[in-house]
Amino acid sequence: MSQPPRPISSAISQSTAERIEIHGLDLTTDLIGVVGLGDMAFLELKGRLPKPGESVVINALLVALVEHGLTPSALAARLTLLGAPEALQAAVAAGLLGLGEVFVGSIEGAAHMLQDGLESGDRDIPGIARRIVEEHRVRRALLPGLGHPVHREADPRTQRLFAVAQVNGVAGRHVDLMRAIGVEAEAALGRALPVNVTGAIGAVASDLQIPWRICRGLGVMARAVGLAGHLLEEMEHPIAGELWRRVERESADSQADQLKEDLA
Amino acid sequence: MSQPPRPISSAISQSTAERIEIHGLDLTTDLIGVVGLGDMAFLELKGRLPKPGESVVINALLVALVEHGLTPSALAARLTLLGAPEALQAAVAAGLLGLGEVFVGSIEGAAHMLQDGLESGDRDIPGIARRIVEEHRVRRALLPGLGHPVHREADPRTQRLFAVAQVNGVAGRHVDLMRAIGVEAEAALGRALPVNVTGAIGAVASDLQIPWRICRGLGVMARAVGLAGHLLEEMEHPIAGELWRRVERESADSQADQLKEDLA
Amino acid sequence: MSQPPRPISSAISQSTAERIEIHGLDLTTDLIGVVGLGDMAFLELKGRLPKPGESVVINALLVALVEHGLTPSALAARLTLLGAPEALQAAVAAGLLGLGEVFVGSIEGAAHMLQDGLESGDRDIPGIARRIVEEHRVRRALLPGLGHPVHREADPRTQRLFAVAQVNGVAGRHVDLMRAIGVEAEAALGRALPVNVTGAIGAVASDLQIPWRICRGLGVMARAVGLAGHLLEEMEHPIAGELWRRVERESADSQADQLKEDLA
Amino acid sequence: MSQPPRPISSAISQSTAERIEIHGLDLTTDLIGVVGLGDMAFLELKGRLPKPGESVVINALLVALVEHGLTPSALAARLTLLGAPEALQAAVAAGLLGLGEVFVGSIEGAAHMLQDGLESGDRDIPGIARRIVEEHRVRRALLPGLGHPVHREADPRTQRLFAVAQVNGVAGRHVDLMRAIGVEAEAALGRALPVNVTGAIGAVASDLQIPWRICRGLGVMARAVGLAGHLLEEMEHPIAGELWRRVERESADSQADQLKEDLA
Repeated sequence: MSQPPRPISSAISQSTAERIEIHGLDLTTDLIGVVGLGDMAFLELKGRLPKPGESVVINALLVALVEHGLTPSALAARLTLLGAPEALQAAVAAGLLGLGEVFVGSIEGAAHMLQDGLESGDRDIPGIARRIVEEHRVRRALLPGLGHPVHREADPRTQRLFAVAQVNGVAGRHVDLMRAIGVEAEAALGRALPVNVTGAIGAVASDLQIPWRICRGLGVMARAVGLAGHLLEEMEHPIAGELWRRVERESADSQADQLKEDLA
Repeated sequence: MSQPPRPISSAISQSTAERIEIHGLDLTTDLIGVVGLGDMAFLELKGRLPKPGESVVINALLVALVEHGLTPSALAARLTLLGAPEALQAAVAAGLLGLGEVFVGSIEGAAHMLQDGLESGDRDIPGIARRIVEEHRVRRALLPGLGHPVHREADPRTQRLFAVAQVNGVAGRHVDLMRAIGVEAEAALGRALPVNVTGAIGAVASDLQIPWRICRGLGVMARAVGLAGHLLEEMEHPIAGELWRRVERESADSQADQLKEDLA
Repeated sequence: MSQPPRPISSAISQSTAERIEIHGLDLTTDLIGVVGLGDMAFLELKGRLPKPGESVVINALLVALVEHGLTPSALAARLTLLGAPEALQAAVAAGLLGLGEVFVGSIEGAAHMLQDGLESGDRDIPGIARRIVEEHRVRRALLPGLGHPVHREADPRTQRLFAVAQVNGVAGRHVDLMRAIGVEAEAALGRALPVNVTGAIGAVASDLQIPWRICRGLGVMARAVGLAGHLLEEMEHPIAGELWRRVERESADSQADQLKEDLA
Repeated sequence: MSQPPRPISSAISQSTAERIEIHGLDLTTDLIGVVGLGDMAFLELKGRLPKPGESVVINALLVALVEHGLTPSALAARLTLLGAPEALQAAVAAGLLGLGEVFVGSIEGAAHMLQDGLESGDRDIPGIARRIVEEHRVRRALLPGLGHPVHREADPRTQRLFAVAQVNGVAGRHVDLMRAIGVEAEAALGRALPVNVTGAIGAVASDLQIPWRICRGLGVMARAVGLAGHLLEEMEHPIAGELWRRVERESADSQADQLKEDLA
């Protein structure tokens, strides 16, 4: 009476000796040399190629996330390469592992908030925004996608992403809601709280109808590109060894100081 | 008398409250909405944006690597998500960790062979090819970038990548050498041994003057995109749990059979 | 007016050319050949070596978690080795990445619940248990550490771990509370809901005063040991390649069937 | 006419609702509360529990590898936690990913060299040692397991590990060969080149007949324990954020200086 096993299959790709298909498109003739890497990201997440405007927008989202200097993620990748130069893939992976709740996770948080907020079909954007801000205030929860430690007044990337989405016919109700939440939050908290880059990406991705559960993936894709750049620089102008030596010396000195204090 | 510490810095990016620069370009005005993700990969690896032909070619290389169905890498990512749905980045990372010597590593191997072969400035391509094939024969080492278990006669992706590189003015001496090595190897071994997709990518990447040490990174960047697609499908049509159940049942049955045999 | 940077140091270990110290103990004379790996885990988490009874208990917790057959985690590790045999560390890491909320995370969940429950100093264990069960019922949240898909009536490992903790003088109020929660939950839900192995581990670890935030680490340490065993078996009797081939074939067949149906 | 698929199974563990067996031993009655975590490592790698002397030795090897302060691996783990505090397993995994060729890999290198050296059954240890040193000299390859940047004269851990192996009846021909290689290398190079801790571990592990291919796993198991300790300290006394801020500031200052020089 045991049930038949469910089939194990993927609808993404199929291949024979002659032909590799991805979502029904021939890799060799329809994709290689025809579309860009950002379009492939769209194809993987939506099951179809982007229209021209959508292509500009998905690429803009990804481009915004590629690089942000010597982040903890880039440092972890470089330190990993120091010990395992044979496995570049492992160094990239180590860098990606830090793209969690604190950094890239806020894209997911913003998209989740926006997609839930509009799920009911309610069209009163300011009302929805007020309710969301109030709910977060009651739960003492941070509103995802708002505020930035450096870009306190306005994040230039946000303006740019919203403009690109607007011009290309993608900006819609999720972008509207994100902006409205920013306005309500500033009113409620009495201080500037601009939509930051992860909020903008979460909003625009939602208007591309990318499910919030995969939005963290946008950051992961993009940072994989940036991390490869950091690892190449690390091979040519290494800093991880120097970083390690300094930390070891400082820790040893600090322990010695502590010991002197303890003995004094 | 201790030396001053060497500076810890990166030339890739710098940012202030107003401006984020990547290799001297303004992220907001020069990159977002202007270039695609594949161009960012070029910028990270070369320190400058690609010319139009180079842009087509780098994107072609990356697009060729994004997706190849239910690979071991995609399965590892899906199985990881089953246990840690809170950390999408970890599931992508798990998938990337298998992009080592056996799969994506052969891009690095091919690029290494080609870049070393042409380093001396010797311009006798057939002679260099003969020497490389002979050296590998003596060491009983596999020639990277040749042959394929499925595409035995010719890999359609190779033809396409070489054509795209040709048309866009990128194909040069590394592509010539890769082809020559294929010809020599077929002569020496007496069987069809076409340049496979990783050989083609290694050759074209070398003609873009991407250092061989970072060539594995092309596969890592591209597969990060593909793995996000697999993880989205896994969320919507999961297979990892079924795969696990079947393996457990088969292993239990196999152990029971073994026990019966042992007792018989 | 900028603040001086905070020191970067670790109190865990210091070393000179003559001596490596870990929490004040000499690695060479006090630890190597003197204590076991489980005691080192205790030392890392508590800053001191365990007393004899504590040593038995911490080892029991870790031993219980080392191995559980062909889990998704073991499969991910084996599939990773297939592509990257040069990087054993990456295959183990891939296996560990799946030890998240669903599997090992419930140790953390149970420990969190128990440590929060007893924080106030309230000594009415049955009352605390009732309140916790009720709170979870209202939030429709799963109680961590209870129930098991296979061991429906009682988990033999739980009985054993509680007995080992009892005999060695470690079992205390967290174990009492875990048991009481089990009793209350069975009464409230009207079905057997035994404390499972992760509940037992969370409770005993809490009675060892290991902070809940690091309890997931017990599973990670232990599974690193078990994954090495799986990877050795994979080298000698590989299964990952066969698993991959079967999945690919089944997916191809399933797509062909689908195509026939679509055409019919 | 297709072949029947090969069975997918593991001989390590089997479990029913009543019983979990690991290499034929009952987890609940034979292992939990009876053996330590180091013995489980032996069981996983050898398929049987260690004899008392073997238990001391395998634990000594593992204990020697648990902790070495603020290594690149520990830093990578801490930096990963900063971004992804929800996924402790990912932070440990990030730390393990750097245990490659440069650090822990030399255990594998030493064990490989020793196991290959003795494979033929030749019993002339000094002769084998001379041949190995000569072969490495010709290939200009580093001899694994010899020399240390800090412990230049003698590594105290090596003496201790060899003594523990000797006293417990485990030290045999692999330890003899490692020592002989050290002697030959010092003679050939004319400078002190003591067997370092990874050489000692590779030699003793080889005398325990642990296959060299899995020897890197000893380091991975042990460091998983140490990394959990570092992550707990990071939660309580964080340093990763300060490390990041300093690196960013130094990189920014360095770029500003460079700009001034360029303009001067």
